[in-house]
Amino acid sequence: MWRMARRYLPHLAAVVLVVVLLYRAHTRPCPEHTQARVKARGATGQTYDRSEAMIFIGGMPRSGTTLARAMLDAHPDVRCGEETRVVPRILQMRQQWKRSAKESMRLLEAGVTDEVLDEAISSFILDIVVNHGQPAARLCNKDPFTLKSATYLARLFPNAKFIFMVRDGRATVHSIISRKVTITGFDLSSYKQCLQRWNSAVQTMNTQCEELGPSKCLPVYYEQLVLHPKDWMKKILNFLDIPWDDAVLHHEEHINKPGGVSLSKVERSSDQVVKPVNLDALTKWVGQIPQEVVEDMPNIAPMLATLGYDPLGNPPNYGQADAFVANNTRRIQREHSKWEDRADAVRSLTKNRKIDGNT
Amino acid sequence: MWRMARRYLPHLAAVVLVVVLLYRAHTRPCPEHTQARVKARGATGQTYDRSEAMIFIGGMPRSGTTLARAMLDAHPDVRCGEETRVVPRILQMRQQWKRSAKESMRLLEAGVTDEVLDEAISSFILDIVVNHGQPAARLCNKDPFTLKSATYLARLFPNAKFIFMVRDGRATVHSIISRKVTITGFDLSSYKQCLQRWNSAVQTMNTQCEELGPSKCLPVYYEQLVLHPKDWMKKILNFLDIPWDDAVLHHEEHINKPGGVSLSKVERSSDQVVKPVNLDALTKWVGQIPQEVVEDMPNIAPMLATLGYDPLGNPPNYGQADAFVANNTRRIQREHSKWEDRADAVRSLTKNRKIDGNT
Repeated sequence: MWRMARRYLPHLAAVVLVVVLLYRAHTRPCPEHTQARVKARGATGQTYDRSEAMIFIGGMPRSGTTLARAMLDAHPDVRCGEETRVVPRILQMRQQWKRSAKESMRLLEAGVTDEVLDEAISSFILDIVVNHGQPAARLCNKDPFTLKSATYLARLFPNAKFIFMVRDGRATVHSIISRKVTITGFDLSSYKQCLQRWNSAVQTMNTQCEELGPSKCLPVYYEQLVLHPKDWMKKILNFLDIPWDDAVLHHEEHINKPGGVSLSKVERSSDQVVKPVNLDALTKWVGQIPQEVVEDMPNIAPMLATLGYDPLGNPPNYGQADAFVANNTRRIQREHSKWEDRADAVRSLTKNRKIDGNT
Repeated sequence: MWRMARRYLPHLAAVVLVVVLLYRAHTRPCPEHTQARVKARGATGQTYDRSEAMIFIGGMPRSGTTLARAMLDAHPDVRCGEETRVVPRILQMRQQWKRSAKESMRLLEAGVTDEVLDEAISSFILDIVVNHGQPAARLCNKDPFTLKSATYLARLFPNAKFIFMVRDGRATVHSIISRKVTITGFDLSSYKQCLQRWNSAVQTMNTQCEELGPSKCLPVYYEQLVLHPKDWMKKILNFLDIPWDDAVLHHEEHINKPGGVSLSKVERSSDQVVKPVNLDALTKWVGQIPQEVVEDMPNIAPMLATLGYDPLGNPPNYGQADAFVANNTRRIQREHSKWEDRADAVRSLTKNRKIDGNT
């Protein structure tokens, strides 16, 4: 009897251990219950939460935000996609609530604390950003006016990084006016008023970017990105901790391809980013702005000088283009009709559209 | 050698099995990954998703929505809590987007499909409803104007149930005007205009409720709830599949107690629901409305007749109160200063407040 017990005891012990492990495997709490909270789930089942290293691209509309996101979209690890339009709207909604002391108090009395609201707003943003496009190792959002809420977004997503697209305000305003891009608060009949509005919006964004500091927010000058795309994409990818990939210099080859650059027919810049990086848009504004506005530029738009633009240069010297870009520009001029056909293919039938944003 | 192998083989097999099980226990996917998606998590770790059997209480402001939610809040299984204010705001935001064909098209082009938007909006709502109050077996939300979006909310939350609070529009409007409750679109200097606005808002809500049908939306008449609280709370709990509990008839005993009725100092009705169910508010409006409006009532507010109110009764016969309520009413009159002290304790210092809602 004792011998038999000695012989089978180890087997019995093993069986007990197996049963215990099977039971534990069945009942042990999932890591999600005890660790980070899942906030959104993509089509392929990937999960995302507030710890996601999101990329937010912002700046004034018509400042190269679409070019920047298209170049990043061409990278196999990154997906930005079209402007969601609803992300800046929910941020604006919150800003209105927080601006009113009365409303803030009402929300607090209702148990809608900052923490509760942040949780809900981040769920909304994450769901939109994750689900409006393909899954990707690095998710990116480009809605120009989000940069006005950059510090708040950094609170919602502590590992997020921000790219602040800066462009000569004269070029931006000329583009807004000549392309009839209506933006809340912008009077398209007045260069002076638009430049003042540009100044105020860019000042807000610049302050937000400076508050975040260089580890979280990188200002990218449109002119420099266009003149030296390789250097600047290296800086950008380095800032984002993303390995280099040559695809970012050939975004035009990835338009509307799987994992590439998905374009909206109704976004104003879609017909431009179908072309390779080129110099066509750098100095179109010269000679288009009323003389009295040109002469008073340092007072009308002091942010020009703050950002390093010569307010009395018409145009200022933006620098010498890399050979790669000069070649692209010549190639587009040579193959004019081919590129115009591509532009037409994504161009919208609607000619006037409204960009929302309280500037 | 062979003997040794025979002796230790079973042990070895057991060890291998244990290692395999340990590995599986560590790597097996959590049920959440493969089953229903977790949308929100409460303070105690309870998880909630769109399958939650939510309760939405709505109706025109000043129609007994606070009384109804307070009576339900007194039930140990239910938590409604204060008006969140932000839930109707996000619903209104979406409505504006959907109303514009242009905006709808832009969202579609950006990959923000109905499905993507619904997911994000339901995440937002669930996060707010779950986290702005205590956990409960049945979560409930009371923001009066949500009922204008009842069919949409039923799409977001397929197991949700709706309580539509209906009240004689003359009483509602008298309360709005005499308590200076500013509501977007309501001109507090005109009974006629307010009654027309009441008519239009209630018509919208009534249509929504009828579209959902009696299994999902229960109209509850304020007057009947006040005259016969026991019968009506039985109907309501039965409709919601919640067992009867006497606490719902004594909500005033649960004010600001744990698991009870949490009140906001800045909600207009807080000073009224501290009292037990009573008849004080039934006919205060009689004699307060300009004669020419009283005489034209059937044309100004046709919804009165639709809902079963006699538009020419001043007041109509709402019915005979239960003894329980008549006793409450006498008790409040007898202990006047005690109940006024309680009302003062929750009454706000702010006298005018704005209720948002596009009516």
